[in-house]
Amino acid sequence: MRVVTLTTDFGLNDWFVGTMKGVILGINARIPIVDITHQVPPGDVRAGAFALLASYSYFPKHTVHVAVVDPGVGSARAAIAIETANYFFVGPDNGVLSLALAEEKVRHIHRLENPKYFCESISRTFHGRDVFASVAGYLSRKTPLRHFGPAQEDLVRTTIPASKRSSAQVAGEIIYIDHFGNAITNLRQTDSRLRPGEIGRLTLPNERRRIPIAQFYQEVETGKPVAVLGSTGFLEIAINGGNAARTFRLKIGSRVILHRSSAE
Amino acid sequence: MRVVTLTTDFGLNDWFVGTMKGVILGINARIPIVDITHQVPPGDVRAGAFALLASYSYFPKHTVHVAVVDPGVGSARAAIAIETANYFFVGPDNGVLSLALAEEKVRHIHRLENPKYFCESISRTFHGRDVFASVAGYLSRKTPLRHFGPAQEDLVRTTIPASKRSSAQVAGEIIYIDHFGNAITNLRQTDSRLRPGEIGRLTLPNERRRIPIAQFYQEVETGKPVAVLGSTGFLEIAINGGNAARTFRLKIGSRVILHRSSAE
Amino acid sequence: MRVVTLTTDFGLNDWFVGTMKGVILGINARIPIVDITHQVPPGDVRAGAFALLASYSYFPKHTVHVAVVDPGVGSARAAIAIETANYFFVGPDNGVLSLALAEEKVRHIHRLENPKYFCESISRTFHGRDVFASVAGYLSRKTPLRHFGPAQEDLVRTTIPASKRSSAQVAGEIIYIDHFGNAITNLRQTDSRLRPGEIGRLTLPNERRRIPIAQFYQEVETGKPVAVLGSTGFLEIAINGGNAARTFRLKIGSRVILHRSSAE
Repeated sequence: MRVVTLTTDFGLNDWFVGTMKGVILGINARIPIVDITHQVPPGDVRAGAFALLASYSYFPKHTVHVAVVDPGVGSARAAIAIETANYFFVGPDNGVLSLALAEEKVRHIHRLENPKYFCESISRTFHGRDVFASVAGYLSRKTPLRHFGPAQEDLVRTTIPASKRSSAQVAGEIIYIDHFGNAITNLRQTDSRLRPGEIGRLTLPNERRRIPIAQFYQEVETGKPVAVLGSTGFLEIAINGGNAARTFRLKIGSRVILHRSSAE
Repeated sequence: MRVVTLTTDFGLNDWFVGTMKGVILGINARIPIVDITHQVPPGDVRAGAFALLASYSYFPKHTVHVAVVDPGVGSARAAIAIETANYFFVGPDNGVLSLALAEEKVRHIHRLENPKYFCESISRTFHGRDVFASVAGYLSRKTPLRHFGPAQEDLVRTTIPASKRSSAQVAGEIIYIDHFGNAITNLRQTDSRLRPGEIGRLTLPNERRRIPIAQFYQEVETGKPVAVLGSTGFLEIAINGGNAARTFRLKIGSRVILHRSSAE
Repeated sequence: MRVVTLTTDFGLNDWFVGTMKGVILGINARIPIVDITHQVPPGDVRAGAFALLASYSYFPKHTVHVAVVDPGVGSARAAIAIETANYFFVGPDNGVLSLALAEEKVRHIHRLENPKYFCESISRTFHGRDVFASVAGYLSRKTPLRHFGPAQEDLVRTTIPASKRSSAQVAGEIIYIDHFGNAITNLRQTDSRLRPGEIGRLTLPNERRRIPIAQFYQEVETGKPVAVLGSTGFLEIAINGGNAARTFRLKIGSRVILHRSSAE
């Protein structure tokens, strides 16, 4: 059995996500459908791409991942389906799939152009329902990608900003702020050259703050800041029992500096 | 296999929706349950009715649609189940089912009065769990409607306000504002007498704003307003990449005027 | 077939809940997963415990209830799985499971220490995914509790504050405020010694307000306050068609006094 996941900026106030599921179940009544999130900030393709990157690999093989953050809906932007060694991906060709795909061995990319696999009447404003959900339903029933439309070679890419190393430090930035106010940086374990438990610290240039690197939140006292290697594989800034983004006024793009242990 | 959908104003902060699903799964362990939305504004029967109207027909035949926006819970208002040519509907008889039913061929309407099909102990404040979820579970197992209680002839209706035509224009109003700030009007394609792509425009009397009618959001520049025939079949006012309701201070009931092409 | 439920403070903005479901479906592809709520206030163990208490018993026998409100994640706090006469429970041993368990006949409590039943790589910040979801997946496949780790005798408890009786009244407090602004007290039917329909009233010491006890919201006029025996079995303060918590500035811990009928 395959699984379908949904990652969108459709929110939960309206009927958008529910109708996508109705379309999928109309094509494959037995498929489990899992919401990753529908609270991607409206039109924020990179945030949607990051949510998909952080989650897709925890699903069983052959899961069909649908991501729809699609400010260009109805315009000439392509709609695509992709098969990798492990998964299927469906969405607009605007970068929303690309962070996950950078980690995967891509086998086929096909454009979605065959209306046979779409809803009967196709709105120009809701391809999430009329194109992407419908194609996901067919993919979950093992329809081959080539039935949907012609192959293409590559896809539009979005990227995580690169960190910058100098001899004693690495300059990074905040790329995501989560529900708890934890601020995820673009610094990976490998950037830090730190082994778990090794001493190091982060500083926030605008706050003159030194933040110790630790293994879990409660290694520091309640109310104190701490940087931990988060569950996504990136260093994140937290406050034990608090909200780091609010306290330090961190935003997407806020700068951080990682000082390695040798620079203590 | 049947599907059950849920449309409520119960929100997502508490356990209300989860317990409804527990009751349903206790009666039919294999039924897929889909959330349409639980963020209907508290007690707003017409908004709930509109969410159901906008979504119900995208589900497979025989889906059991449950809608609970029920400010009169526990009072003398009736609880009903309805069978149409295509679907089943369950909820309070207060209008929340009526916009969808206006599009359907109604076969049977029965009152929910037989406690055999309710939870063992029935709260006076949570019929969503103790009456409607339970009956939906039995409906998904094909229990005939007549088992639930006596037939009735009609149901309480709510309506979408009518638009008003004069020779060169149609006067309408905003009936729903979605997550993106798109403001859905009560003007349908047929009201406009416009074919897709034909020239026309909307004006907002309070804003002295002319809004071109187009086919999709990106037909206008980023930040510019546009009216499109939305995925619900109604004209909606959007800003490409922005929030029209906030920018133009549109609310439910705000007036709009549609000028047909001949009036340009 | 078993069911898995999830109660967390992970919110719905990120990918946290979705990845938990991915892990569970990777272990048991056919298990229905139901969200109780993911909007428990961050780190509020007692609120999470109350949501679980209010919902768990509405699920079919053998349901696996997972509750993760876990400010001590990664620290020395134990992770546990519990088997009762009717259900399974999984979560951190910090009290979040304890209100539900106080109502259940506990059979076995085991610590989760066997990494064979965890995700391959275990984050120190997201045991919801790497430990609890994984163990829930195995429990749903009927893996016996003793495989997960050693038995323990008891668990960490949180409690609902006790009400205090004097001859003519019972002093209580607000323990939960729901989506509608209904303020749930710690006063049960048995505290009131009231039969449904019997006359009584609540007062709010800070507001000099007398609130009649009734059976359902619409027993009072729109805009008027009313206390009803809510669907959780506790007396709750509501305003018919309004928001009692906002109107009366009620918070968790706000005091209420129940005057029995004999004290009228």
